[in-house]
Amino acid sequence: MGGGELVVAVAGATGAVGREMLKTLEGRAFPATTVKALASSRSAGTTVPFAGGELIVEEMTEKSFEGVDIALFSAGGSTSKQFAPFAVKSGCVVIDNSSAWRMDPEVPLVVPEVNPEDVDWHKGIIANPNCSTIQMVVALKPLHDVGKIKRVIVSTYQAVSGTGQKAIAELETQVRQLFNSQEPDVKVYPHQIAFNCLPQIDVFSDGDYTFEEIKMIKETNKIMGDDSIKVTATTVRVPVFYGHSESVNIETEKKITAKEARAILSQAPGVVVYDNPAEKIYPMPLMAGGEDPVFVGRIREDNTIENGLHLWIVADNIRKGAALNAVQIAELLLERGQVRV
Amino acid sequence: MGGGELVVAVAGATGAVGREMLKTLEGRAFPATTVKALASSRSAGTTVPFAGGELIVEEMTEKSFEGVDIALFSAGGSTSKQFAPFAVKSGCVVIDNSSAWRMDPEVPLVVPEVNPEDVDWHKGIIANPNCSTIQMVVALKPLHDVGKIKRVIVSTYQAVSGTGQKAIAELETQVRQLFNSQEPDVKVYPHQIAFNCLPQIDVFSDGDYTFEEIKMIKETNKIMGDDSIKVTATTVRVPVFYGHSESVNIETEKKITAKEARAILSQAPGVVVYDNPAEKIYPMPLMAGGEDPVFVGRIREDNTIENGLHLWIVADNIRKGAALNAVQIAELLLERGQVRV
Repeated sequence: MGGGELVVAVAGATGAVGREMLKTLEGRAFPATTVKALASSRSAGTTVPFAGGELIVEEMTEKSFEGVDIALFSAGGSTSKQFAPFAVKSGCVVIDNSSAWRMDPEVPLVVPEVNPEDVDWHKGIIANPNCSTIQMVVALKPLHDVGKIKRVIVSTYQAVSGTGQKAIAELETQVRQLFNSQEPDVKVYPHQIAFNCLPQIDVFSDGDYTFEEIKMIKETNKIMGDDSIKVTATTVRVPVFYGHSESVNIETEKKITAKEARAILSQAPGVVVYDNPAEKIYPMPLMAGGEDPVFVGRIREDNTIENGLHLWIVADNIRKGAALNAVQIAELLLERGQVRV
Repeated sequence: MGGGELVVAVAGATGAVGREMLKTLEGRAFPATTVKALASSRSAGTTVPFAGGELIVEEMTEKSFEGVDIALFSAGGSTSKQFAPFAVKSGCVVIDNSSAWRMDPEVPLVVPEVNPEDVDWHKGIIANPNCSTIQMVVALKPLHDVGKIKRVIVSTYQAVSGTGQKAIAELETQVRQLFNSQEPDVKVYPHQIAFNCLPQIDVFSDGDYTFEEIKMIKETNKIMGDDSIKVTATTVRVPVFYGHSESVNIETEKKITAKEARAILSQAPGVVVYDNPAEKIYPMPLMAGGEDPVFVGRIREDNTIENGLHLWIVADNIRKGAALNAVQIAELLLERGQVRV
């Protein structure tokens, strides 16, 4: 801490997102002098790959965060609730990937391309938004700045990796079982995911919306800093390993043509416009996997209303949807002098 | 023809839809005295299963329709264009599953639950709508009758069987290849479909909409007999074998609550409401495969507008989306005295 030292901990280092956080710290040459891998007692003593070598996973305890400057949490809401307060007490800034504090008015919810200035008012914890929300707001913000978005209707096509390693294994196992004429094991999801679509992500809540749908609605308003944007969502799990896709329909106050939208998005940070129908070029989860940007294509005017646009938005849900966004927040903390090396 | 005889021909009998048409004629005990299986010269002499036995496939020629009362065509647009006029000249009524005549003002486009009366003005050809359109209008019509639909925004999740036998084989082959660390063969679709989503169905046209999207827009207006309904669509292929899913957002003139929508749809012909979130009950392609009804669930009010509703609509695209609807039209012809036994 200080004096040229920068200690970073990854809490939940053995999960799908935790592993990607380590890869991202390495890949972006994050200036950490020490990186600690933390997980539950079950994983303590195992190793995770980092920077050409391996890190030995330590058990996360109340004392794990002493001397740590930044902790990237991706260990589920209850673990965050339990350990983040100790991390904060040790003077560590927590960037939390769970939904535990996202809607807490005392906690900034940050997507660096959209609301970087919000890191400045943190009180020890900064929340990393839901994966589906992150990729959507990265594409919507530049359009909102030009035309003011009034309404958003989104339907998602979400990959199993959003649920974690177990779900990746479940899709793979189910496919193998089906191709060997066996009854597929259904454990992680309420129904078989192989060769199926599940119109349920997370549990059901008010008005029969799922929590995932409610997250997309509320988090979008908080990140964009504009409660006047009306958002509604239908979230669906599809048999894809990596990469969330979103069919997004927006209504703006000021007309934005498809051509203008392409030009605006081509200049936008974190966005790559991938939109050439004549050449069959459009974003797909298969091409977004392992990539940093949010890809936008199928940009079309929706003529059923005066100022309507369709967008097809795809990103790697584990990267930009989780690990990359968290590391970008950590970079912001350094850039904005919130954490000093 | 007449005198107690009823001769039915299935043109394109060896395809995915043709085979299902034969199964449906049998399953619904359609009162045909003779069923002929027709296909291209390539398939002539092969057999297709029917009524516990087999039919020998005959080559389709200009003379194949002599003495035939009703011909169910599912052999692609160019074959329909080539042979249907000869069938009509022979006094046969053609029910055509291709897109060749769907938007022809001289040709009725019929979904029996929605516009049965339109069969009465046929001039020899009746068009069977696009699979994605059929299941949507079956669910929308009863709501339109009560609340008048002003706007429809649909995003689809379409199965490979909609493309035919070759696409079913391609998904299966690609999965096997990937699970054996081989490069997947990409032939039927422009990109790999296994573990991917393709936001392109059919070719691109005006305003960068695909033909599939344009079909959903125009056919909905024609079938519902109401051009004032504004429809927009994004159509996407997903790695599912059977069953199309649709995330549909509608705006009505008169308020319909979610509860009212459930009550209306529970009484609607051809619809099964499958909507109990507490028990994780909602429609999925896996459960719709091999079933006749259009399943509707995830019925929710969309509070971003005054009178908004979300629906999740799933049906077997080969059955209600094609073969069953065609056979139901044939049944209507008998019921309404258009064809006499």
